[in-house]
Amino acid sequence: MQQTVRVELGSRSYDIVIGPDLLQDSRKQLEPIISGKRVAVVSDSKVSEKYLDLLKTTLDPITSRWDLYPIQEGEDAKSFSCLEDLLDRMLADGIDRQCRVVAFGGGVVGDVAGFAAALLMRGIELIQIPTTLMSQVDSSVGGKNAINTRLGKNLVGSFLQPRIVLNDVSVLSSLPLDEMKSGYGEIIKYGVLRGNREFEWLEQNHSAIMNQKSEELVEVIRMGCETKAMIVSEDELDKGKRALVNLGHTFAHAFETFAGFGKFQHGLSVGLGVIAACRLSEKAGFCEDGLSRRVEEHASDAGMPVTLQDLDGGITWIKEELYQKMMHDKKTVNGSINFVLLKGLGEPFVCNTIEKEMVLETLSEFGAK
Amino acid sequence: MQQTVRVELGSRSYDIVIGPDLLQDSRKQLEPIISGKRVAVVSDSKVSEKYLDLLKTTLDPITSRWDLYPIQEGEDAKSFSCLEDLLDRMLADGIDRQCRVVAFGGGVVGDVAGFAAALLMRGIELIQIPTTLMSQVDSSVGGKNAINTRLGKNLVGSFLQPRIVLNDVSVLSSLPLDEMKSGYGEIIKYGVLRGNREFEWLEQNHSAIMNQKSEELVEVIRMGCETKAMIVSEDELDKGKRALVNLGHTFAHAFETFAGFGKFQHGLSVGLGVIAACRLSEKAGFCEDGLSRRVEEHASDAGMPVTLQDLDGGITWIKEELYQKMMHDKKTVNGSINFVLLKGLGEPFVCNTIEKEMVLETLSEFGAK
Repeated sequence: MQQTVRVELGSRSYDIVIGPDLLQDSRKQLEPIISGKRVAVVSDSKVSEKYLDLLKTTLDPITSRWDLYPIQEGEDAKSFSCLEDLLDRMLADGIDRQCRVVAFGGGVVGDVAGFAAALLMRGIELIQIPTTLMSQVDSSVGGKNAINTRLGKNLVGSFLQPRIVLNDVSVLSSLPLDEMKSGYGEIIKYGVLRGNREFEWLEQNHSAIMNQKSEELVEVIRMGCETKAMIVSEDELDKGKRALVNLGHTFAHAFETFAGFGKFQHGLSVGLGVIAACRLSEKAGFCEDGLSRRVEEHASDAGMPVTLQDLDGGITWIKEELYQKMMHDKKTVNGSINFVLLKGLGEPFVCNTIEKEMVLETLSEFGAK
Repeated sequence: MQQTVRVELGSRSYDIVIGPDLLQDSRKQLEPIISGKRVAVVSDSKVSEKYLDLLKTTLDPITSRWDLYPIQEGEDAKSFSCLEDLLDRMLADGIDRQCRVVAFGGGVVGDVAGFAAALLMRGIELIQIPTTLMSQVDSSVGGKNAINTRLGKNLVGSFLQPRIVLNDVSVLSSLPLDEMKSGYGEIIKYGVLRGNREFEWLEQNHSAIMNQKSEELVEVIRMGCETKAMIVSEDELDKGKRALVNLGHTFAHAFETFAGFGKFQHGLSVGLGVIAACRLSEKAGFCEDGLSRRVEEHASDAGMPVTLQDLDGGITWIKEELYQKMMHDKKTVNGSINFVLLKGLGEPFVCNTIEKEMVLETLSEFGAK
């Protein structure tokens, strides 16, 4: 049931392996990369307590030595002080250029461990073993890493492509429903980016995915990774086409910064943002009416939020302020907001000529005042 | 009298322009890169007080806005806290992906500004205007940047190739002799790396260089940059051949860590390290006797240290401890020290099979007990 997606980036190309039971059974994949090497596993306690023993069975026989470098759980770990502390611990232990870093956890672990690997002696090799649906389907592909500053999220970071990504779908079985839904927000995004066939497959299989059936998980993660890999291969450093993977994110970031980060899972607002981008595309006449309705119905079927009130009913959402947040997005240049819009399923493009009024109207329809 | 060295790195290729009066007269070179853009100039007070007005005459007419971001003088600026503070100030001012960072100062400024540019939103474009002989001839070429940690120097950093390097030799006229000598240590290194013709030219022209004659400065900086550029072009990310530019540095780093950083200028110990590498090459039978004598005589003529006592007479240099420092160099892998040695002028190679006894003997001959 294993699948492999190749990310084509010249000398930095790598495989994403997707399947069940990879933690305890990926010696074949890891041996060429870490055989006889010293390995630094970066993880948080939630992941390491549950799964480190499984990973140990793979690492023990093939590494010269491996150590766990715990970082704190949650978004607070994405700070300068945590990064400095992690780097100091690794350096004090004698981690050198020949060592390998394993990022073992969700998106936060991937960001912090990836950033540390990128900076340590200007770059040591990285292996990603993501443990959430969100990180398996999205954030582990493409080599981006970042930490937050007091001015905003992910404003400081770098690119470091991993040598391999191991997506073990078995670890997803212990994920809470909220985390599954968060990952599903990105999955909706990839379905819409990809085209009708893939979106139809989601419409038929969302229950199996949400119920953590291995076969469907492997299939949907393959679809997400493959879609992102195709886009990233053409624009590794995010100078152009890679913007397409931000479908829904201009809305989503505005929702998140307005509400205050951590109020709801990132992927939930991405899912809602994708519906909003479809609606805006219809309003602007780029695609036929009905697209946003179809995506909304699918999201609703999958138990995802389809209005701002679904996202957080305790907040009074103010459209003018949401618009201001969009204006201050890091992708906004010279005051023109870059929206990813659609001509239809599988036909995304970047548009920076949308009138403010049309955006406000869209926000209204999703429940903003 | 202007010269240009092209650093060939595919899509990241760039020019190093070397000449007098470039600060006030480089509109032609900078316009294609910063025309209409917002620019963040990172500098320390020593440089900005003396030279910012000259740079202003170039920047004012072609930028949409430019601001000075001062950092503290000296090696202490290469810390996590200074880096974080600089990034926060830039972000708070609204520096975005379209802005350009100008590193305006010596090696420390180049490191901190280059690192900040590399990390800010995962990389914004960098222009280097180095103002010391050391940074013009060496550290501004090749895109390396770094900060120090409590475990050692330059252990955390990244690669970011600049869009252009402007080496204005006129600013060197105000450099103190010590700084000139520090730069000259790297120049000796490049002469030895390059070959007999270049080394002979140094033997004939060192006085003119030390006396800051423009024409000879342009020529020697061109030679240094060209040599480094040739090596870097073949090995941008320091996986192999780039090690050659570390000629003399295994010794130099040991001298510096033993003495404590800041006791003497980096380039002084590099110059001495190059002589030591020549001596070691002779001992090991890789080159004919006489090479180290020739390099030593030249260094002595140029007023450079040729013994450890010249470097710092107040220190009792212990060869066994110096050797231990070499064992802990970040380039030492699995306990075998990587020395850059010579088969002759212009014939450097990396060697990791040198016996400890031979290194200790060499250290003795330079005044270690």
